[in-house]
Amino acid sequence: MAHGDDGWRIRRTTADVDRLDETESIFALSNGWVGWRGTLDEGAPCGMPGSYLNGFHEQHELTYPEGGYAFPERSDTVISAPNAALVRLWVDGEPLDLRTGTTRHHHRELDLRAGVVRRETEWVSPAGRGVRIRSTRLVSLPRRPVAAVDWEVEPLDGPVRVRICADLLANERVPERADDPRAASIIHDPLTAETGRQDGVDGVLVHRTERSGQRVAVAVAHRTEAPDEAVTDTELTDDRFRLALTGALRPGERIRVTTFAAYECAPVDGTPAGELADVVVAEAEAARADGFDALLDAQRAALDAAWATADVELDGDPELEQAVRFGVFHLLQAGRGDADHTIPAKGLTGNGYDGHVLWDTEGYVLPVLTYLAPDLARSALRWRHAHLPEARERATELRLTGATFPWRTLGGRECSGYWPAGSAGLHVNADIADAVLRYVAATGDTGFRAECGAELLIETARLWHGHGHWDDRAAFHLTGVTGPDEYSALVDDNVFTNLMARRNLRGAADAAESCPEVADRLGVEPSEVAGWRAAADAVHIPYDHKRGVHEQSAGFTEQPEWDFAATGEDDYPLLLHFPYQELYRKQVVKQADLVLAMLRCPGDFTADEKARNVAYYEARTVRDSSLSASAQAILAAEVGHLDLAYDLFAETALQDLADLGDKTADGLHLASLAGAWLVVAQGFGGLRDDRGVLSFEPRLPRRLTRIAFHLRWRGQRLRVTLTPETARYELPDAGPGDTVELWHHGEQLHLTGTTPVSRPMPPVPTVGPEPTSPRGRRPARR
Amino acid sequence: MAHGDDGWRIRRTTADVDRLDETESIFALSNGWVGWRGTLDEGAPCGMPGSYLNGFHEQHELTYPEGGYAFPERSDTVISAPNAALVRLWVDGEPLDLRTGTTRHHHRELDLRAGVVRRETEWVSPAGRGVRIRSTRLVSLPRRPVAAVDWEVEPLDGPVRVRICADLLANERVPERADDPRAASIIHDPLTAETGRQDGVDGVLVHRTERSGQRVAVAVAHRTEAPDEAVTDTELTDDRFRLALTGALRPGERIRVTTFAAYECAPVDGTPAGELADVVVAEAEAARADGFDALLDAQRAALDAAWATADVELDGDPELEQAVRFGVFHLLQAGRGDADHTIPAKGLTGNGYDGHVLWDTEGYVLPVLTYLAPDLARSALRWRHAHLPEARERATELRLTGATFPWRTLGGRECSGYWPAGSAGLHVNADIADAVLRYVAATGDTGFRAECGAELLIETARLWHGHGHWDDRAAFHLTGVTGPDEYSALVDDNVFTNLMARRNLRGAADAAESCPEVADRLGVEPSEVAGWRAAADAVHIPYDHKRGVHEQSAGFTEQPEWDFAATGEDDYPLLLHFPYQELYRKQVVKQADLVLAMLRCPGDFTADEKARNVAYYEARTVRDSSLSASAQAILAAEVGHLDLAYDLFAETALQDLADLGDKTADGLHLASLAGAWLVVAQGFGGLRDDRGVLSFEPRLPRRLTRIAFHLRWRGQRLRVTLTPETARYELPDAGPGDTVELWHHGEQLHLTGTTPVSRPMPPVPTVGPEPTSPRGRRPARR
Repeated sequence: MAHGDDGWRIRRTTADVDRLDETESIFALSNGWVGWRGTLDEGAPCGMPGSYLNGFHEQHELTYPEGGYAFPERSDTVISAPNAALVRLWVDGEPLDLRTGTTRHHHRELDLRAGVVRRETEWVSPAGRGVRIRSTRLVSLPRRPVAAVDWEVEPLDGPVRVRICADLLANERVPERADDPRAASIIHDPLTAETGRQDGVDGVLVHRTERSGQRVAVAVAHRTEAPDEAVTDTELTDDRFRLALTGALRPGERIRVTTFAAYECAPVDGTPAGELADVVVAEAEAARADGFDALLDAQRAALDAAWATADVELDGDPELEQAVRFGVFHLLQAGRGDADHTIPAKGLTGNGYDGHVLWDTEGYVLPVLTYLAPDLARSALRWRHAHLPEARERATELRLTGATFPWRTLGGRECSGYWPAGSAGLHVNADIADAVLRYVAATGDTGFRAECGAELLIETARLWHGHGHWDDRAAFHLTGVTGPDEYSALVDDNVFTNLMARRNLRGAADAAESCPEVADRLGVEPSEVAGWRAAADAVHIPYDHKRGVHEQSAGFTEQPEWDFAATGEDDYPLLLHFPYQELYRKQVVKQADLVLAMLRCPGDFTADEKARNVAYYEARTVRDSSLSASAQAILAAEVGHLDLAYDLFAETALQDLADLGDKTADGLHLASLAGAWLVVAQGFGGLRDDRGVLSFEPRLPRRLTRIAFHLRWRGQRLRVTLTPETARYELPDAGPGDTVELWHHGEQLHLTGTTPVSRPMPPVPTVGPEPTSPRGRRPARR
Repeated sequence: MAHGDDGWRIRRTTADVDRLDETESIFALSNGWVGWRGTLDEGAPCGMPGSYLNGFHEQHELTYPEGGYAFPERSDTVISAPNAALVRLWVDGEPLDLRTGTTRHHHRELDLRAGVVRRETEWVSPAGRGVRIRSTRLVSLPRRPVAAVDWEVEPLDGPVRVRICADLLANERVPERADDPRAASIIHDPLTAETGRQDGVDGVLVHRTERSGQRVAVAVAHRTEAPDEAVTDTELTDDRFRLALTGALRPGERIRVTTFAAYECAPVDGTPAGELADVVVAEAEAARADGFDALLDAQRAALDAAWATADVELDGDPELEQAVRFGVFHLLQAGRGDADHTIPAKGLTGNGYDGHVLWDTEGYVLPVLTYLAPDLARSALRWRHAHLPEARERATELRLTGATFPWRTLGGRECSGYWPAGSAGLHVNADIADAVLRYVAATGDTGFRAECGAELLIETARLWHGHGHWDDRAAFHLTGVTGPDEYSALVDDNVFTNLMARRNLRGAADAAESCPEVADRLGVEPSEVAGWRAAADAVHIPYDHKRGVHEQSAGFTEQPEWDFAATGEDDYPLLLHFPYQELYRKQVVKQADLVLAMLRCPGDFTADEKARNVAYYEARTVRDSSLSASAQAILAAEVGHLDLAYDLFAETALQDLADLGDKTADGLHLASLAGAWLVVAQGFGGLRDDRGVLSFEPRLPRRLTRIAFHLRWRGQRLRVTLTPETARYELPDAGPGDTVELWHHGEQLHLTGTTPVSRPMPPVPTVGPEPTSPRGRRPARR
């Protein structure tokens, strides 16, 4: 293994078996359809196994001590498809297990350009027999159903007898997680065997779920290399297909097993079990026929193409450069452009939040993918569109109008079991609308708008229009909602929600006019459009004139202050140490809310307001949510507090690599990783496009000597390079006639062809002292 | 059975086996310690069996789809002690079961003066054999552990062979109730047998609970009368002791079985099982030795004494006169003065609300018992005092100060599984304080104040003082609480809560000064007392100047109006058809809240304000809670809408006798029944005593020609008689030196000795049209 190139490789060289679950998330591989957690090949020790398919889930009942009308009665929870990545090893009868014997050397790395996880271990068994294991795993980006493991063993010092079992295993045991509301519900043995068969060294298993009505088929095709005397046998049971090799290895000899797996799932009333088995067998065999090297080549080619846009360079901070790339890699492999697939909050890297999709997707992940891989953003938005029927039903159930998308879901229905921080978070609907508007503005994809986007905008606008009410001073209010900050709930006129609803209402009005055939089909009358515009114009934005700041929601700034002096380090996260009834009624902010409003709707605030709001809310925001740091960083940068911005940037970028929240074990925080790219582009690059116009107000933090990043805009790849003196904009792939218009610190620039345009970086405005953070909650200084 | 005297007997003459559970509640008997539901003697058919002991319960786990800090993890739920009231009968081999054969006659009655339930049934078996059954049941008011059944059978037409089984049965099967958040959690087979024994025809069973750590012993002593040839046998198993008689009866012959039962319970680490058995055996045998007639005599004597104060006469409406007596009877038998016993929301008449104690007790039941049977009120308040340790612990857990009493409990700990309508309802603490203040004012019981009352007042005042905050205009706010109206939640400055907290704070300050030794023991400094008084003086009371009404809580009158025009009859109760997120944010009121504030704190509102507030809130109150009608009635009477008041009076009085809420099956609504007496005394009598002064502003409704009621005040029994022309006040039991001061429509009267004082009834002020109720929600016109 090469050891240069650190910016592109994430390494772990100790086998910290107590923190395996954390590395399993970091080393997770996915192609947006199949997701394999980065478990050790041998399956034990294991933090939490996971081999997921996008959307594959089971349902379980939700029971309440005191129920209520429209409380969801069932929830989806992600479950593992059969695991094809297991290669177990016995050395002279003793199982390879890093908790026993001696680990002389252990090394794993995620190669961000190759798209593989490599592993090398030298282990001496308790009886003193040494072996070296090497493996390479990939989940194929170009070949949707395919994942593969290339594994080999050789003796270290002297001859050994080995037994190797490459397992395809269903219903792998998943441990119960700690008692934390953010953990997953575990369903044991969720899969029921339907059929299985074997053919030589290959096998296939087909299972179904009991309640969610899904069928899953997984095939493995094996290639083995072994000394002639090695014995091969196989075993097929309901839940396992096993290929076993037994033999003796002398120094210089080795056994190699390559598993080519293929995954597919379908509704139980769709493709029959036998046919689904045929499909995956054919895919696995085709992958084997092409060979592991061909998979590696195709993987690298796909990533080369992606990195051309996705790469970020941060001269001066290699650790964060690597961290941003790590985050972008996980975003890219979480999505899939060739079907209507969404991206759960943890991607396919773990079962945290039950594998649910939350507003993290539209609020954080899609704003990145829209610029880096717009087909993935489109696919996720198409998935929302496909679930409009459930959202309309939910609106009816809740006695609301239009469509109400679920706060959390896998299958499309509301799965939130705590409504004040679930169904009341209506802003998810505006977040979806916002993502539609951004995607259409950045891509110019009018086909998507006509097919899906306009309908999403219109049905969510109908929600807001029906939910709001007019007071007798002709102001339009949205009451009884929960905004992004989950330490407040059921508030009136949450500024974020109100401004985003305004954007949604106006976007719907524009879409109804641009897509008259969609408007007709949905029965939109001109009067309805006029009503949306009127409501948007009249949306009430509460402002505290005495304090000179916006109220996060009506009355927020009059609430009691939180006693930070009496709050110790061990009291965080507050939600585990204080009741909601204390958190909700006080001025303590879990995560950026008003600050996020200033990021999403920058034109609705003056520069002075932004500066005062940043200071006010920084002092009250504890960042108990990983969604917070990026928005705080971006606004801190905008108002000129670049050191604070940089430290917040580090926090969001290192959320998982440093496991800052101690929750990486449950899966990666994709929104936090997305936030790292957003801080680069929106914080330091000053990128804004909320009015459909691309503008930059770049400001380089002191720590960096150069930033380079790219984004796609109306089909062009734009490269932005920032140094302390100069901002350079160029279109590296453009032809002579291609142009992009953008603004740099208020100056309009016309980029044409490949000619870069450079402009000076204005000095950062002089600002006052850094805003105060709550005691002990300032991000670590870099 | 005599059929005169209808005002004192509640009769049911049909055996509506589909509504048995409703009559089981109505015919429930209790002495505040033992409670027997009014099941049929033969145990089948049965709606819901129940033989309760005050405080006897089991615990079960509460699980949440998404938990939270300080969400209760366990709840208490009432369970049945072994049932000693069963007398089964087989007629020529066929079981007596009203669902089979022919019921020629069936009659049950609750005699409110005798304190018994009598039953007479003539039944012809499917094979044509006729029998007459008679039984009389009582739960002895003077003898705490004792309950008894006197039962007999005789042939109707010709000879019959009968088998009679008098059963003492543990773990009687309880059916699951409908899926309604207000129903009980059923624990099957909650009792584990510890020991049992028999002695001739007598038996005793001792069981324990698994989790709540309670032991229960029940003994039965039998007396039988039967023809000589009848055969007696007995059978003892873990869960049943059975006395069986088998024999033939010719016309004119009969078999009579009298069961004398005794109940006791103790902590499992308290009295050992064998000793507890000895205790109840001795009690049962003693009751048998005295005989059933002696029990009847003592029962009637106890009730004669109680009715001397408790009786209410309503000339002109015998149905409601009976209904008020029915309610008072159930209040009297729900409490117990000789121990620290509370009164659950359903008394001991059913398992609704899991048998929990809620604010119904202090808010509705104790205001009645304070005047009619003050020892029962004292006992219930002593029970609260006994659970101060848990309330202090809960305050600490919630990060609050002082004591926080549970929203619902049996054993003393919070059992609410939905905190916005549970733990957030902090007003329960002020309701307890209010009940303490009323009890002390009405009785002058300074011993209780020193022993319990002052501590209750001080610890709850500490809650309010710590919870509130001062704004920069020196107003004191209580935010993030839920008031009585459960269609709003987590509101700021709920007027009811704020005014009641003020009363609590001032009451505590007075108590600290009156009871310096208590204040010393609790570390109360003069500065703390000054702080309570300052907070009380500065409590903010939101008022809408534009509309000229008080805001139920801050901003209420600016919320969207509920669309009553679009709300159909089937949409009620709204909580079963609309989500909380719609209910909470709109101007729809489940139950009197601001109106209740005007009842509890009448001096804080002008007459004009009361009239405007009544009209405003009447139009928005749907009475989906049975707690509502009485407060609405009293305020309607006060502001002069006597017809509306009378119709609301009928609703609260008939809540259970007419099963208006279709929930009587789960147990009686004691608060609603208490409300009936309160409407008589406070609504038509105009009784107020919130400042420790007894005042009346009586107003006779048109329907009645005379009202007479009594109440105890500072040890005296005061009789109040109202006619259209005259109000008469007298002290029938007073000696020559005894005096009571009271006010009649603003005139101070000094009652001395037995001389009645009469004053004219002033005319009811002319008022405008009756306030509008929500469509379809006006109470039925009488």
